[in-house]
Amino acid sequence: MRAAPPPLAGGTSGAEALRPLLDTVLDALHDGARARGGPLPPGGPEAVVARVAALGAVLPEHGTDPHEALRTLVHAVAEGAADPAHPLCAAHLHTPPLALAVAADLAASALNPSMDSWDQAPAASALEAEVTAALAAEVYPAAGRPDALVTTGGTESNQLALLLARERHGRIRTVVGANAHHSFHRAAWLLGLPRPVTVPTPEGTLHPAALAGALKGLDGPVLVAATAGTTDEGLIDPIPALADVCAAHGAELHVDAAYGGPVLFSRTHRHLLDGLDRARTVTVDLHKLGWQPAAAGLLAVRDAADLHVLGHTADYLNADDDTEAGLPDLLGRSLRTTRRPDVLKTAVTLRALGRAGLGALVDACMERAQDLADLVEKSPALELRARPTLTTVLFRPVTAAEPTDGATSAGSADGATPTEAAGATPTEAAGATSTDEDLAAIRRTLLAEGHAVLGRAGADGRLWLKATLLNPHATPGDLARLITLVEGSTHR
Amino acid sequence: MRAAPPPLAGGTSGAEALRPLLDTVLDALHDGARARGGPLPPGGPEAVVARVAALGAVLPEHGTDPHEALRTLVHAVAEGAADPAHPLCAAHLHTPPLALAVAADLAASALNPSMDSWDQAPAASALEAEVTAALAAEVYPAAGRPDALVTTGGTESNQLALLLARERHGRIRTVVGANAHHSFHRAAWLLGLPRPVTVPTPEGTLHPAALAGALKGLDGPVLVAATAGTTDEGLIDPIPALADVCAAHGAELHVDAAYGGPVLFSRTHRHLLDGLDRARTVTVDLHKLGWQPAAAGLLAVRDAADLHVLGHTADYLNADDDTEAGLPDLLGRSLRTTRRPDVLKTAVTLRALGRAGLGALVDACMERAQDLADLVEKSPALELRARPTLTTVLFRPVTAAEPTDGATSAGSADGATPTEAAGATPTEAAGATSTDEDLAAIRRTLLAEGHAVLGRAGADGRLWLKATLLNPHATPGDLARLITLVEGSTHR
Repeated sequence: MRAAPPPLAGGTSGAEALRPLLDTVLDALHDGARARGGPLPPGGPEAVVARVAALGAVLPEHGTDPHEALRTLVHAVAEGAADPAHPLCAAHLHTPPLALAVAADLAASALNPSMDSWDQAPAASALEAEVTAALAAEVYPAAGRPDALVTTGGTESNQLALLLARERHGRIRTVVGANAHHSFHRAAWLLGLPRPVTVPTPEGTLHPAALAGALKGLDGPVLVAATAGTTDEGLIDPIPALADVCAAHGAELHVDAAYGGPVLFSRTHRHLLDGLDRARTVTVDLHKLGWQPAAAGLLAVRDAADLHVLGHTADYLNADDDTEAGLPDLLGRSLRTTRRPDVLKTAVTLRALGRAGLGALVDACMERAQDLADLVEKSPALELRARPTLTTVLFRPVTAAEPTDGATSAGSADGATPTEAAGATPTEAAGATSTDEDLAAIRRTLLAEGHAVLGRAGADGRLWLKATLLNPHATPGDLARLITLVEGSTHR
Repeated sequence: MRAAPPPLAGGTSGAEALRPLLDTVLDALHDGARARGGPLPPGGPEAVVARVAALGAVLPEHGTDPHEALRTLVHAVAEGAADPAHPLCAAHLHTPPLALAVAADLAASALNPSMDSWDQAPAASALEAEVTAALAAEVYPAAGRPDALVTTGGTESNQLALLLARERHGRIRTVVGANAHHSFHRAAWLLGLPRPVTVPTPEGTLHPAALAGALKGLDGPVLVAATAGTTDEGLIDPIPALADVCAAHGAELHVDAAYGGPVLFSRTHRHLLDGLDRARTVTVDLHKLGWQPAAAGLLAVRDAADLHVLGHTADYLNADDDTEAGLPDLLGRSLRTTRRPDVLKTAVTLRALGRAGLGALVDACMERAQDLADLVEKSPALELRARPTLTTVLFRPVTAAEPTDGATSAGSADGATPTEAAGATPTEAAGATSTDEDLAAIRRTLLAEGHAVLGRAGADGRLWLKATLLNPHATPGDLARLITLVEGSTHR
């Protein structure tokens, strides 16, 4: 007698099969977070690898049972997480997801619609069409027929933007600022396009005059990629002025607003994105400021006709006679075939919070960034890079002397040479240094001790600690703890 | 006084925030499935679009609340799903996910690790390394250092295989059978490679002599892509013989085992994949035979060194000094940057079921396919294309006369012309015809009525109905109902 197969998540009995399993998961999430006790597990990579290895074979000949497997592995991953819901986990554009978005995502897994054909996702594909239309209209309020594709994130969105440009123009040249996301370089490589021209951005944003200078020297079709929310400093390129330069030189403009895009939801701050709709394509991630679990990427296009080049036929999915008979043709909505309905969690979030609710979350994080900047400015031991534009704050210990040998590890992509720290007051105890190497070590020590997850960024030729504030629940007290931790680390 | 932000899914309080929201989701999943009542909603695309449109604005200025949003949208998507857990939903390689995998996936959403840097995913990245190593060893049991990358599915895996080949050889030519997945053509286009050479496969598999003939005429580097589990018929190319041909011609071999790969888990059937490890790269999807919610794709490589070309540095994620200090460099594990830990659900499934448990599920689906073939053979009104190799069964109504004008809509990718139906017995009532057009209409009618989700495939120059049996809970009674439905549809 063969054992019955384990229960499925779908159908009329799926919900009851899921309920006890989800109880086990929730308990393991809770216990794992308690066992961790901080933003990430102490001990660094070796300790984490050892704990995972101690769980036993990942592919045994005979299984344990669902509850044991769920309890063991979910507990291990929770205990060993860098949890963005912890206010001292603030290194990356790594968002703490909203509970309601995570709950919605469960339904995506349980129903498992695949977005490559109508007969795998009737309602999910209809919902996606509505949500992408609504979000495209947020980016392009005045366009006649904007559209948006759902992607795995900014990297895929930027890649698609280059692909669309390639299909319009052939072997197009991409021009980016040194402040642009690394994905443009990877996308050009992937697509067989020339290496992007990189314009130095010593001030952290792409200067229109510098762009104009770069464009002057180029023949042939050009796509300029500007950034609204740089990875290193959270800065926004001057989009209207860059759009003017592009227009004057016959170049096309793409804006990578993976980070900054959702600022559109904020009445207070949306002016920061003025001119965004002058771009032909715009990248937006809702798994950053948008509080979705990964992935929730978008590529918005001003004119839906630009997407026609993605049209693709596979007889088993969208045969011509089926399309003529009214079955929607979905294959041109992505370069993927099987595709999870990431749009469901986003749809639930938009409906539950509305534009105003999302805007309030954006505003809260923007305020936290200003609060952290205030605390840095008040600390005699710390130096602030600049007042934040979005939710990223760069700071570093005040130094007695900056390195002058050029051997900085800042790795600033613009290649600027290290400069003296203008106005830095030497307030630290004698012997305390803060070269870039020390700063990188401070970050790694905070990680290894499990105390804080801070990022790093090169700017002004030096290395900085980076806090990216995406947690609307973070309090001024949390930020003060973060400052105290960094101050303490500089005196060892 | 500003309202508190909605609760997060992570941290020590996330589980308690999730619990009531998940109750709402489970109720909506259950009620939606009950309201649907069958494998998919009746009424076709127009009815589904109308129901989704009636839900109101997708992006209101002010939100409703989490429970209302979850209840409304999850109910709508469940009611409007083509639910692969329903035994009459069998069109595609669209799997009904296991409840335990779906439950595990909730933890991935709640913790939201991102797999692009260690400090976003300490334990999840360690777990991924173990699981990919174990699965790579299943594909390459005798290789010294195999490895596997996690992908969004077979399409991305095949694209990666071509990319790796391009980086080894430059402008490589891909050779595929007409039975190969459409993604090879799209990948070559994406990567700026020459259009693949397509070898006709009139028998449904790639014949070694036909491949040898095609290779003889080609200069320069060649990647041959064979298929273990074709999309149309579920057939397996003769891998050992094709590997011999490749070796004789200095061509490299990739095998797209997106569908067939998990047959490795079955002691009874794994011999079908003999020779698989002679491929340099192998595509496997665990969201097909593997019962994972999308996405759970893999690209296995015989030698981990082949992956070095994906190495990529972004100072904020994997600066050289951090890597030297022991922080794992993860950016070369994917072309994506932000990346959801799809490995968690797979890890839970492997641990809970073991190789034997997964093999039993494979065996059950293989048996269901044989059962369905038996029923087709017993039906005087239906013709079976062939005994199934994997879990795909092609059949069609027995016809009085086949179309002879060549205007078939079968769209068989091998370009074969329609042929007479040899041995077809005209048993239908006078006036009943069964041209390809009628057959396509039968499929659409079953969809529009909400009665069954069947696929379509061109083979032998004709169009066939396709049932892909991935539901281990399907019973012989379910299959009999499916046959009765099709028989009934042919007499209208």
